[in-house]
Amino acid sequence: MSAFKTIEWKDDQLVLLDCTKLPVEESYVVCKDYRTLADAIRRLVVRGAPAIGLSAAYGVVLAAMEARGKAKDKEDFARLVRKAIEDLSQTRPTAVNLFWALSRMNKKLEDLLFLDYGTIIKSLLEEAHRIYEEDVKANIQMGKYGSELVLPNSSILTHCNAGALATADYGTALGVIRYAHKQGKNIHVYIDETRPLLQGARLTAWEMVKEGIPATLITDNMAGYCMKLGKIDMVLFGADRIAANGDVANKIGSYSISVLAKEHGIPVYVAAPLSTIDINIESGDDIPIEERDKDEVRHLYGVQTAPADVDVFNPAFDVTPNQYITGIITEVGILRPPYKLSIEKAINGLRTF
Amino acid sequence: MSAFKTIEWKDDQLVLLDCTKLPVEESYVVCKDYRTLADAIRRLVVRGAPAIGLSAAYGVVLAAMEARGKAKDKEDFARLVRKAIEDLSQTRPTAVNLFWALSRMNKKLEDLLFLDYGTIIKSLLEEAHRIYEEDVKANIQMGKYGSELVLPNSSILTHCNAGALATADYGTALGVIRYAHKQGKNIHVYIDETRPLLQGARLTAWEMVKEGIPATLITDNMAGYCMKLGKIDMVLFGADRIAANGDVANKIGSYSISVLAKEHGIPVYVAAPLSTIDINIESGDDIPIEERDKDEVRHLYGVQTAPADVDVFNPAFDVTPNQYITGIITEVGILRPPYKLSIEKAINGLRTF
Repeated sequence: MSAFKTIEWKDDQLVLLDCTKLPVEESYVVCKDYRTLADAIRRLVVRGAPAIGLSAAYGVVLAAMEARGKAKDKEDFARLVRKAIEDLSQTRPTAVNLFWALSRMNKKLEDLLFLDYGTIIKSLLEEAHRIYEEDVKANIQMGKYGSELVLPNSSILTHCNAGALATADYGTALGVIRYAHKQGKNIHVYIDETRPLLQGARLTAWEMVKEGIPATLITDNMAGYCMKLGKIDMVLFGADRIAANGDVANKIGSYSISVLAKEHGIPVYVAAPLSTIDINIESGDDIPIEERDKDEVRHLYGVQTAPADVDVFNPAFDVTPNQYITGIITEVGILRPPYKLSIEKAINGLRTF
Repeated sequence: MSAFKTIEWKDDQLVLLDCTKLPVEESYVVCKDYRTLADAIRRLVVRGAPAIGLSAAYGVVLAAMEARGKAKDKEDFARLVRKAIEDLSQTRPTAVNLFWALSRMNKKLEDLLFLDYGTIIKSLLEEAHRIYEEDVKANIQMGKYGSELVLPNSSILTHCNAGALATADYGTALGVIRYAHKQGKNIHVYIDETRPLLQGARLTAWEMVKEGIPATLITDNMAGYCMKLGKIDMVLFGADRIAANGDVANKIGSYSISVLAKEHGIPVYVAAPLSTIDINIESGDDIPIEERDKDEVRHLYGVQTAPADVDVFNPAFDVTPNQYITGIITEVGILRPPYKLSIEKAINGLRTF
């Protein structure tokens, strides 16, 4: 497990390690109500698909605690919590884990409504804790399965942060890297810095340094050249949403490195729990892609890096079509093409919720 | 012509528009001696292959003026100027225009040594001015030839800055864009921000805004996704050195966008004067690639963006093999594959210096 807690339920509050302040400062945002949490999700205090879903689950608990003090009756209580679920679902559009976790919490709520407030809240909290524990377990399973794909003495390129900072703990892509490192495979990690918000430089590099895993930071535009120089043996990243056909939405730039990897004959693996798969979406074309503020590109830490009046296109994610993806590492094993089939099988074999 | 002067000889001094301060501040560095200039080249106050060569040519004039006041005799004078040429040639390794311009100035010096100091200096200055004028003329010619390749209402992706800020004036890649825009072709420019030093965001965006050419700034890792969305019709960038076989060294990231363009069936054009071609180098594998300070990636404007102790790989350039390049736009026309032949022809037909 990691030496830090990304998300922690403590004294009836949700404590988030502030990802916007790393690596310079390790500080925390304490959420006493779900609105503070919604704002924290929007501001990327907490980010990464599994971490967003998980923290939103705790957000439902916060909402229920608040509603208990305000509600005239059970009907009013349910209305208030449903409203919070709706608000939380509006924070970010791409990571499906958010909707998955909220839908799971919502189902729990509806099942419990006949009980007393204390029991409802306790059960909702238990459900959030369960999501937390399942996520940690899934990450370790992914680490185990994924590590089998990692050759000794090999170099892995990763993009953005799919680490302990993006999950309950351990990480998806970085979980595989942690596992392979622990097995003594003598791996080396290349980290795309991941503009505009530098999750690679700020978060993944921080995790690698903390773990003592040998790593080299590069700018995103160096990935192709590093592949050409023979420095990369494998590409490995996480996912924000995977369509039923295996198309993968992930941090902007994932598509580019997948195309580059194909040109160099380098395998591309995606590590993601089954909760990241959206079987209701047939292909990546239908995944909504969040566009963020233009000033994220024109400024960095408040410093102007471009003319104030130049136009900007700032999609936070892109979609990598399934033909670029060698395999999807999940907690039930490695899914291979054709993904429509292997995904269906994985979902039906295990996902009963 | 542009509304600003990148390089200007004025009152026996070389005045450089400080590219490190743009776009926030338009300030100038005044070089009274060649050492100040060498430092300015190293610090990227002046950058871009043609601009580096050109300013180094003026550096030889500065060195000759200084040597005149110090030298015991003509032999000593020659020794001092040759030393300055040697020092200037050490500033940056990749852009061949630097060595080309210095070799041209050196030849002039050797031819003139029998004359008096005043005549030598006057003639060296005339030679530097000639390089300046030839560069402007070459850029306009490139603009004319290159614009024929630009379809009306099309979008052009450019990388780094190959503009008036990288040349005497007008620009190579941006010269083509200026020309096409002036012809009313209704073009739209996509600008890669070009990490780590953001020459796209800071310099190309500034030039486009100044010229009123419609442009959209993106981070480097968005280029592939923009191509996939059908937003890019043509890729166009400059060059720091072109090998005899047409392999192109240019700002890091050029290789990645060339591979991405190939995958999307988008043509890739390079705009560069013949002085950028190094016929002594057979292929791109032999072009020396400058590696710069690791803190260029770990910091931005003094702000820490990564753990201080994470390792960094920071090549300033990469090499795009000739098979990814649709054509090379020069002042004598568009060179097409096979480049070994078309380059040989272009060089022999025109380059007599």
